[in-house]
Amino acid sequence: MEVINYLLGYKGLKIVQNTDMFNFSLDSVLLANFVSLNKGIGKILDIGCGNAPIPLILSTKTDASITGVEIQSDVYDLALKSVALNCLDDRINIVNADINDFSADCSSDCYDVITCNPPFFKVTTGSHFNNSSYKLLARHEVCLNLEQLFKISRKLLKNGGVVAIVHRPDRMIDIFCEMRRNNIEPKRVRFIYPKVGRMCNMILVEGSKNGKSGLSILPPLVIHDDNGDYTSEVMKFFEE
Amino acid sequence: MEVINYLLGYKGLKIVQNTDMFNFSLDSVLLANFVSLNKGIGKILDIGCGNAPIPLILSTKTDASITGVEIQSDVYDLALKSVALNCLDDRINIVNADINDFSADCSSDCYDVITCNPPFFKVTTGSHFNNSSYKLLARHEVCLNLEQLFKISRKLLKNGGVVAIVHRPDRMIDIFCEMRRNNIEPKRVRFIYPKVGRMCNMILVEGSKNGKSGLSILPPLVIHDDNGDYTSEVMKFFEE
Repeated sequence: MEVINYLLGYKGLKIVQNTDMFNFSLDSVLLANFVSLNKGIGKILDIGCGNAPIPLILSTKTDASITGVEIQSDVYDLALKSVALNCLDDRINIVNADINDFSADCSSDCYDVITCNPPFFKVTTGSHFNNSSYKLLARHEVCLNLEQLFKISRKLLKNGGVVAIVHRPDRMIDIFCEMRRNNIEPKRVRFIYPKVGRMCNMILVEGSKNGKSGLSILPPLVIHDDNGDYTSEVMKFFEE
Repeated sequence: MEVINYLLGYKGLKIVQNTDMFNFSLDSVLLANFVSLNKGIGKILDIGCGNAPIPLILSTKTDASITGVEIQSDVYDLALKSVALNCLDDRINIVNADINDFSADCSSDCYDVITCNPPFFKVTTGSHFNNSSYKLLARHEVCLNLEQLFKISRKLLKNGGVVAIVHRPDRMIDIFCEMRRNNIEPKRVRFIYPKVGRMCNMILVEGSKNGKSGLSILPPLVIHDDNGDYTSEVMKFFEE
């Protein structure tokens, strides 16, 4: 069922979802609030944009031209509707394509910022797939693995441009090694904890193309307080 | 000036320090309380043991035989005195040697656990050295760099054995890459923050020789409360 939800309360940003498909998640909101957005950013690319939560949020934070690429046509349709609903067609361009093909056709060194909330799970011979193809492609590295993601980032980013992703802690070492292999130096990391005293369950990582080595680890971000409510820091992301 | 200080309050552990040389630091206490100590550990090696805070603390947590290697003879003397003062000569063996020579003479695959509070700073042509040679060797990678540390760990650790280190966040990517290069898979990480809301200034990392990939990120550890006192979690490390 197709529904319209608020994405950001104060700014009145809305998003079109489909309850049978993949809905936007907190991951995307955290990533959109983590990525470095320096002044003078011209072009942003969101890889695997889903129903476009990241392009929508970033449109409130920059004046950049934003492109979202989504492989699944039904999800792409939701993204188009979300952009139109917020009258952002002049700022956000949604493309229905496989990012590998999109990248191959794209000229090099043209983006200032790339964001990606990529599939979390490695595909192995023992992988059990969720029945929904929407969820399959969004969750498993069928169409996009880490190696491809950073190879694409290396090609498309300007020198000094940044790529920011959200991922799971158990893949952190793979992420760092794959970034370095593609001359993308990890520069900023933030660790997300579901509650105080619990293990980290999500990571935010940003790297810079041809950047100097030297990493900053930001203060930890805790999602829920002891009552299970969002902490004030997380609430701020929705109240903007 | 040589002084005797308490290392662990409850257990009455004491340590011999010299106020003109390098005194033990919180780093070592954190590392000794971070490293995995499974039952049945037979042999532990502490690389660059200083005045032996890590061997002393670990002696209260395991029944293992512990070796500490220290290159500086004056610091080695302090370590000997500390061990004797606590009547631990039968449990802790301190060796005055360069770890590179020690490792070359040592048989392979013989340690269950290696700990190291290594020099933090890369040596470059622009490096400004502290006048004290004690501090120079302890702080700069003159005698031991990350590449050597993990090459040595690879040789000396049993299969599945662990090496745990304390270091600075800006070298984290170098650490992970150097570990993987030596078939030591990072398995556990903990991030240390000086106060709530501040950037991470220290990291604890543990890897397993020939371990499977998959990392756990432990809850963050905050050192000081708003009044500048140690938090209760840090106090516990000293009260044991």
